[in-house]
Amino acid sequence: MKVLITGVAGFIGSHLADHYLAQGVQVAGIDNFSTGQSEFLVGANKNPGFKLFQSDLFNYTNTEKILKEFKPDAVVHLAANADVRFGLNHPRKDLEQGTICTFNILEASRQAGVKQFAYSSTGSVYGEPTVFPTPESCSFPIQTSLYAASKLAGEALIQSYAEGYGIKGYIFRFVSILGERYTHGHIFDFAKKIKANSKSIEVLGDGNQQKAYLYVGDCIRAIDHIMKTQNEKINIFNLGPDEYLTVNQSLDVICKTMNVQPTRDYTGGKRGWIGDSPFIFLDCTKLKKTGWKATRTIRESVEITLKYLLENSWLLERRS
Amino acid sequence: MKVLITGVAGFIGSHLADHYLAQGVQVAGIDNFSTGQSEFLVGANKNPGFKLFQSDLFNYTNTEKILKEFKPDAVVHLAANADVRFGLNHPRKDLEQGTICTFNILEASRQAGVKQFAYSSTGSVYGEPTVFPTPESCSFPIQTSLYAASKLAGEALIQSYAEGYGIKGYIFRFVSILGERYTHGHIFDFAKKIKANSKSIEVLGDGNQQKAYLYVGDCIRAIDHIMKTQNEKINIFNLGPDEYLTVNQSLDVICKTMNVQPTRDYTGGKRGWIGDSPFIFLDCTKLKKTGWKATRTIRESVEITLKYLLENSWLLERRS
Repeated sequence: MKVLITGVAGFIGSHLADHYLAQGVQVAGIDNFSTGQSEFLVGANKNPGFKLFQSDLFNYTNTEKILKEFKPDAVVHLAANADVRFGLNHPRKDLEQGTICTFNILEASRQAGVKQFAYSSTGSVYGEPTVFPTPESCSFPIQTSLYAASKLAGEALIQSYAEGYGIKGYIFRFVSILGERYTHGHIFDFAKKIKANSKSIEVLGDGNQQKAYLYVGDCIRAIDHIMKTQNEKINIFNLGPDEYLTVNQSLDVICKTMNVQPTRDYTGGKRGWIGDSPFIFLDCTKLKKTGWKATRTIRESVEITLKYLLENSWLLERRS
Repeated sequence: MKVLITGVAGFIGSHLADHYLAQGVQVAGIDNFSTGQSEFLVGANKNPGFKLFQSDLFNYTNTEKILKEFKPDAVVHLAANADVRFGLNHPRKDLEQGTICTFNILEASRQAGVKQFAYSSTGSVYGEPTVFPTPESCSFPIQTSLYAASKLAGEALIQSYAEGYGIKGYIFRFVSILGERYTHGHIFDFAKKIKANSKSIEVLGDGNQQKAYLYVGDCIRAIDHIMKTQNEKINIFNLGPDEYLTVNQSLDVICKTMNVQPTRDYTGGKRGWIGDSPFIFLDCTKLKKTGWKATRTIRESVEITLKYLLENSWLLERRS
């Protein structure tokens, strides 16, 4: 069994590589190291079953060459523009790093005879839904961010490739993922701000945004489990927990763990930024019916993440 | 009032240009003439209110230059890869001529301060729905063709631009359009085949595919009407008739009009090709509530189209 992971030096990609390598699976990884961290691959690099390609998916020729050299059975495409919040500052970035790179790795996978193609989509493709928890079959959504628009474009490409060329598609609509090696998002931002100033902290929006978060280990096990047990032409699964937390509650956990009590300065409004969904809570009944179960609560995940960041302050300092 | 139309030398684009020019609107058109026909612009070219730019939307720099020179109030983006059936032969074509060109004209429109951006999407974005007629709010679809995947990607881009930058979005999910200047599709293919051989004709699929078709004049009036009367951030409308015809019934009308009785050789199967939806019938209640009404039945539209093609056999001969 050979698996290729894109974005392998990222938060989720590096965990997935470790997970597969522990099973004896041969793993190749692609990363352009725009946001990936070589430190995350220290373990994988020691394993002879691991092969790293430093390459950008935007370069189709290189991508096809790598795929034809490694000949994976399955591809897990995790690479993306992680800079969700600032999408409106550079609208071409999500098109290029999202849609076009997804096309490139998908087409290269077809050319190399890949059988399974898995993709990290997002719960944000539901836009601002009216049904909570939101099931995979909810009504035709309207996109509110360039990030989600590029993820939806990627989903649609994979679906039409599955229909037209017979490659099996696995689409995972993630909530935000937490855990060791977490590199961006609200806990990262809060921890960084509190380290700089423990007296007061800026909170985007009114702090009442409700969000679901999943522990990275639970995310990894879900991907592996679904790809091993599900065999439809297109397999679409929400991936999240049974609960959610407000941004304020999440900050409560962080403040308690860090033993600080900063005053909170709210920027105001229901949304932290344009395109921020004020409520993300996915219906994961379909996933749970396959036998998967989350092992960590959101509060535990927040604590683990924060502890990791405080023990690895190089990461807080490196990423702005 | 100034309107820019992409794909202006195409079937629908040239009608829309004529329609606006007749109202005294200033019209600019962009076309790369890959499938556009200069003959369709004979009328428009005589009007001093019309300006034609021969340019490819894939070239962003040129596109932005044209937009900044003409400074339209509204853009109607109709240009696309019309070669739906053969999408699987060249998967990059829909990405480039669909998704990327849509991004380019949308971004250039934002840079030029355009207020309204209208887009010809397709009923095919519903994939193979289970509800008929299919409403705009049906459940989250799964794409079955690269053409529809690129249209959905375009919809998502426009939605996120509307949310993020305030440009008003108009998304029209068309059924197939019929009428004068029709350049591709089943009537075109049938007429061409019968002219070559009136004794027997190949029919893709089992001939029982059910399809809705709309007269081009009704389509044009709907676009104009919706853009004048609707003012939401995002305005999404199905655009089709209250009826549908099977491919066989459509062939009946064609054979009767041409006074031939070829034997029918079916290629078999429910679908004419991979990604061909066996039943397209859109719920246009939302559109009709705005006061719009179709003026032609499908049968009338088929007859008008066929008559036009027989009187303009240069078109049948030119396009393969």
